[in-house]
Amino acid sequence: MRQFSRTSFFAFLIVTLFASVNGLSQEHPSLILTKEGVRNIRAELGNIPLFDATLEREKKEVDAEIAQGINTPIPKDYSGGYTHEKHKKNFLIAQKAGVLYQVLQDEKYAKYIKEMLFQYEAMYKDLPLHPKTRSYARGKLFWQCLNDSNWLVYMSQAYDCIYNYLSKEERNTLENNLFKPFADHISVDSPQFYQRVHNHSTWGNAAVGMIGLVMNDQELIDRALYGIKDLKLDAKAKDDDGGFLNQDGKAGFLANIEEPFSPDGYYNEGPYYQRYAMYPFLIFATGLENVKPELEIFKFKDSVLLKSVTALLNLTDADGEFFPLNDGQKGMSYYARELVTAVDIAYRYGNQDASLLSVAQEQESVLLDDSGLAVALGVKNGKAKPFEKKSINLSDGPEGKQGGVAILRSKDIELVFKYASQGSSHGHYDKLSYSLYAKGEEVIQDYGLARFVNIEQKGGGNYLKENKTWAKQTIAHNTITQNEASHFDGKFEIGSKYHSELYFFDDSKANIKIASAKEKNAYPGTQMHRTMALITDEDLEQPYMLDLMRVTSNKVNKYDFPYYFKGQVIQANFEYQTPKSLDVLGNNHGYQHLFVEGAAKASDDNSKLSWLNEGEFHTLTSVTHANDNLIFTRIGANDPEFNLRRDAGLLLRRENTKNTLFASVIEAHGSYSPISELAINSNSSIKKVEVLVDTDAYTAIRITLVNDKSKLFIVANNNGSKEESHKLKINNKNHTWVGSYYYN
Amino acid sequence: MRQFSRTSFFAFLIVTLFASVNGLSQEHPSLILTKEGVRNIRAELGNIPLFDATLEREKKEVDAEIAQGINTPIPKDYSGGYTHEKHKKNFLIAQKAGVLYQVLQDEKYAKYIKEMLFQYEAMYKDLPLHPKTRSYARGKLFWQCLNDSNWLVYMSQAYDCIYNYLSKEERNTLENNLFKPFADHISVDSPQFYQRVHNHSTWGNAAVGMIGLVMNDQELIDRALYGIKDLKLDAKAKDDDGGFLNQDGKAGFLANIEEPFSPDGYYNEGPYYQRYAMYPFLIFATGLENVKPELEIFKFKDSVLLKSVTALLNLTDADGEFFPLNDGQKGMSYYARELVTAVDIAYRYGNQDASLLSVAQEQESVLLDDSGLAVALGVKNGKAKPFEKKSINLSDGPEGKQGGVAILRSKDIELVFKYASQGSSHGHYDKLSYSLYAKGEEVIQDYGLARFVNIEQKGGGNYLKENKTWAKQTIAHNTITQNEASHFDGKFEIGSKYHSELYFFDDSKANIKIASAKEKNAYPGTQMHRTMALITDEDLEQPYMLDLMRVTSNKVNKYDFPYYFKGQVIQANFEYQTPKSLDVLGNNHGYQHLFVEGAAKASDDNSKLSWLNEGEFHTLTSVTHANDNLIFTRIGANDPEFNLRRDAGLLLRRENTKNTLFASVIEAHGSYSPISELAINSNSSIKKVEVLVDTDAYTAIRITLVNDKSKLFIVANNNGSKEESHKLKINNKNHTWVGSYYYN
Repeated sequence: MRQFSRTSFFAFLIVTLFASVNGLSQEHPSLILTKEGVRNIRAELGNIPLFDATLEREKKEVDAEIAQGINTPIPKDYSGGYTHEKHKKNFLIAQKAGVLYQVLQDEKYAKYIKEMLFQYEAMYKDLPLHPKTRSYARGKLFWQCLNDSNWLVYMSQAYDCIYNYLSKEERNTLENNLFKPFADHISVDSPQFYQRVHNHSTWGNAAVGMIGLVMNDQELIDRALYGIKDLKLDAKAKDDDGGFLNQDGKAGFLANIEEPFSPDGYYNEGPYYQRYAMYPFLIFATGLENVKPELEIFKFKDSVLLKSVTALLNLTDADGEFFPLNDGQKGMSYYARELVTAVDIAYRYGNQDASLLSVAQEQESVLLDDSGLAVALGVKNGKAKPFEKKSINLSDGPEGKQGGVAILRSKDIELVFKYASQGSSHGHYDKLSYSLYAKGEEVIQDYGLARFVNIEQKGGGNYLKENKTWAKQTIAHNTITQNEASHFDGKFEIGSKYHSELYFFDDSKANIKIASAKEKNAYPGTQMHRTMALITDEDLEQPYMLDLMRVTSNKVNKYDFPYYFKGQVIQANFEYQTPKSLDVLGNNHGYQHLFVEGAAKASDDNSKLSWLNEGEFHTLTSVTHANDNLIFTRIGANDPEFNLRRDAGLLLRRENTKNTLFASVIEAHGSYSPISELAINSNSSIKKVEVLVDTDAYTAIRITLVNDKSKLFIVANNNGSKEESHKLKINNKNHTWVGSYYYN
Repeated sequence: MRQFSRTSFFAFLIVTLFASVNGLSQEHPSLILTKEGVRNIRAELGNIPLFDATLEREKKEVDAEIAQGINTPIPKDYSGGYTHEKHKKNFLIAQKAGVLYQVLQDEKYAKYIKEMLFQYEAMYKDLPLHPKTRSYARGKLFWQCLNDSNWLVYMSQAYDCIYNYLSKEERNTLENNLFKPFADHISVDSPQFYQRVHNHSTWGNAAVGMIGLVMNDQELIDRALYGIKDLKLDAKAKDDDGGFLNQDGKAGFLANIEEPFSPDGYYNEGPYYQRYAMYPFLIFATGLENVKPELEIFKFKDSVLLKSVTALLNLTDADGEFFPLNDGQKGMSYYARELVTAVDIAYRYGNQDASLLSVAQEQESVLLDDSGLAVALGVKNGKAKPFEKKSINLSDGPEGKQGGVAILRSKDIELVFKYASQGSSHGHYDKLSYSLYAKGEEVIQDYGLARFVNIEQKGGGNYLKENKTWAKQTIAHNTITQNEASHFDGKFEIGSKYHSELYFFDDSKANIKIASAKEKNAYPGTQMHRTMALITDEDLEQPYMLDLMRVTSNKVNKYDFPYYFKGQVIQANFEYQTPKSLDVLGNNHGYQHLFVEGAAKASDDNSKLSWLNEGEFHTLTSVTHANDNLIFTRIGANDPEFNLRRDAGLLLRRENTKNTLFASVIEAHGSYSPISELAINSNSSIKKVEVLVDTDAYTAIRITLVNDKSKLFIVANNNGSKEESHKLKINNKNHTWVGSYYYN
């Protein structure tokens, strides 16, 4: 050992000398774990509960894998299949093994990684493209370059951890036969994947950049940061998901930060993909910060990477689950490993926000690196404060000028109001749509995506065709569909040009949280103006949602306005008929996926529907007209492989109409337990919702409770300014106020 | 105070004197709480965590109610409506207030009860029948005598607790104007309710008996124990639910123990109603034990009341939820207050079974009386042992000779196999039906009841007509329907005459838990013989279910054999077509409630279906014939008020057949998490299920795994004896064994 140490020290001297001569002054590990970080961690081990617990868990997992032996099968399957899942497992375990080698200084972990890497090296040299052909950019280990990039992002970290364990010769072999060609395949050989602004490319950039940082290869680092030099792509080409490959020629990691993130940290594809992209964003940024601190990557674009973590945490419901804006798998939450990364890195490289520590506590896991150590120490020292989610307005677009997402929160109610831009290839045609939550449970649901991620039997675990024919279509969302056609006719090229506009947002008052936005392009000649509020009334146990959707058009249209209520019908105040057999509602734009389960003529007054879900009652009170139709729908028509959930909806249909207002209120009330069998407060507290005024200038609504108390709400339709004075006479009574709305 | 105490003591002396002279040697409280119990509790208060916590919680609840003031509204509503829920709340709170008065000796609780009782006294004198007319036995405070009885069971306890707080005159007023007429109304004035063997009557008996015990009224006590003297009812009359009112003239509390409980403690209506009935059974028994110990009520019928608690706890899934045999609301569990009562009383009056203490710990609640004290002390003293649910066979019928229910348990899998008698008026027509659970989640579901208990908007919270037209029908269950008609043609009179027969049950082996039963009467001329097993195979992560349903008939029939799988379809190995519009499957016997969502010709081999539910994969492998049809069904047709859940099913239809075997295997395997997005072990491990032999004498099945290992299972169809030797040659190989089945 002594002998070995001396030799090591001698080697170290030579390396240092060589490095300083060649500018290669890099120690290892340096990427995510650092030498100093390892020293600090080892000094605290056994004394940092959150870190120790994570270490113990990951050690157990890695040891079990090591015991099974290494397997690097010839690539064959789509996601969910054996070879796919095996290679995925390999890189996840290798990254952990690298950390364990550094932290525990047990050579078996280094040996394991080394052997695995040499197996890959032996295979990769002659490996053709992956045999599955579905991707626009096929990988070699996986069916798409995206997964190959995942592999390299993780393997770079493993390599960094055993860098000094390997001989120079071994490193040369790996770098020349595996890492460099691997990085080339996902970049210069796959520009349609690499050279764009997209979450896929972010992974590609990070992969190339991270291996570049470990190898200290400036060309790769530059390629990562700025894209492939001097390459121009066809601006009109599209990817598998229907997104443009590269419309404006932007590429590289910095462009991928610049473009999709708004200054508020909102990521244009939505939180599900933001979560997915956070890992390469933050892990590569951490590598850059450690190896190239002069870049000040965390300060880039006014520290948007750090802001995006806070934005992302705010895009979760009461249970920490992401709101499924655009393509998003329900159930994904801040318990995902990417969010452990995000929270820990944001804590360490941001301003040590103590509220992040409480999220880390809930996650019960930290990164096994310098960031994780900082978090574990913070928690151990009792610094954690609650992460309080409040109402928030997040702008969309690189400069925050392409609409946004407003989240209104009050007591147990959360309302997610989307007035954003298209959201890239994962965007849905759902201008001014919303979803509503109570205590973390869906009241009015957004469908999410039509995909069983990584379940091979369901279309290889990839997007199912119902994602396009149903989930992305307007009728799948809680907004207006005009004449049975989706917004922008469901055309991505058109939708990508436009965004909705914020009219106003106000979260400053205790009893009303409100947002209002307008959309002028979804249907040429038609404007939609939606105002949504959560109103707290002392006579109601929970705040209720007020929804005013004002439509003005230059022609007569048919408007469909659905409520995708979650749960089982308890009561309706209208007489409906249910058909003997179920027919589809329409033929196209998602209508072909809806069965008609019931139909009614609405009353010329208020139509009410109550339902029960997860032990909570909810009631919709909607202002309807005598000619309106109400249609109970059920998702699942034209679904030959049972890819869709059989969820319910109530569709309010208004035909032969130019300008109109959809005004409604939704209450969450009471509870039911199958154990106590008590039904508490199961009836609506709202007696009546009336439209008193609806002109181009003002819309005034009166909400009367069953106790006959009433409230007046007025919104100024043409001036959203906080300073403007307004005056409106209703029933001979003058109302004057300053600002965009009145509530009393 | 001193003055008061002296007076009290003097009063006590006089009462004691008077009591001994008149044979009224009764102290108060004596019913559930006893004077000695109160002394013991007070000595331990603050030192018995479970008891203290419950006390604190209930005190808070009662104090909040007292602060709101007393309200005894004129009766008007069905269950779920205001007056119903208010009167229900009143008796629940009064009972608790009585306990608080005794335990805390705070007069405000006694005063509260006294005032409430006098409000009832003032109202009751002139109270007509409840205005709602739906019940066969209308109450006065409530729409049915059943709820009036609930009231009296609880109020008797409250009255007992403040008995000595009231003057003799006050007691006379309450007894003469309220309690006696109240007891008479639910008994002599409502014999159709009171004079029978039924859970309703049990409540009636207990109510009359408990107030009788407090008042020391021997006539009422006798009426409670033995029924109304010299009364005979029409043997053919029926109640609201279609049950016979009193076919054999039996009545009274003792008959209500004697008849519905089997010697194993199984209650013939099923666990949901057993839970409901447990409260009056055990609370009145406790009162009898305390006041009339000479009756030795807990030893009655070989201590069946105590045994029934263990049986009931065994009738719950891994989450403590009752299996919904017959009419049963899903979600009801051993966390219900009735089970706190049951567990505590069974612990104290049984043999202090330490495993009951662990259930009490999970319940986090105890009775605030002598029993609760015993449990809280047991827990505090660390005596609790796990309540281990094992495979169990529970006989049905007063003498245990009317079939039964077998619960097979192995690792995370529970199989509930019902071969019982009709189950009284709450019985379903589901001979040899089953349901299957994995980790407490339904894999193959029993529909349960069609009712929203206590939710007024849904048919007054009562049974919905779909309970009869769907939930009770055979096709709603996982068993054979022959020629689209329910067992016994859905006729209660016929069904009540018969029961299935146990063929054998064996839980003695580690790798196979098995039950087999026969049914000869559901369809005259047809015999069903079903053998169900949970088989543990070292190559599979969970035990799988083997299901052999052998049908022999004297004529050609159509057999429908449904699998009500819970969750979403992942994969099928057969080609199915899905219709454009959904039509009903049939016209009657529940078929009118099923839509056809898909149809296929089965393969002449194995038909396989995989589905995903709550993060777990499941696969059915069913031996099918070339002429079999497979039909995907969806519940919800002809459901004009959305009373039914839109749940899926796969129906295997075999037409033009006399004798046949339905052989299938169901595996629970793998997992999926929307957070890790890992699909683990998502494919079936079973390659093939083959019927090697199927004769009147033997059925032999070979199960081959994907690793090509195979197992042979043989059941002897005509001799279920453990001792019998068998020999069978299959493919020229001789198999010999002793006992009803062979597995290797």
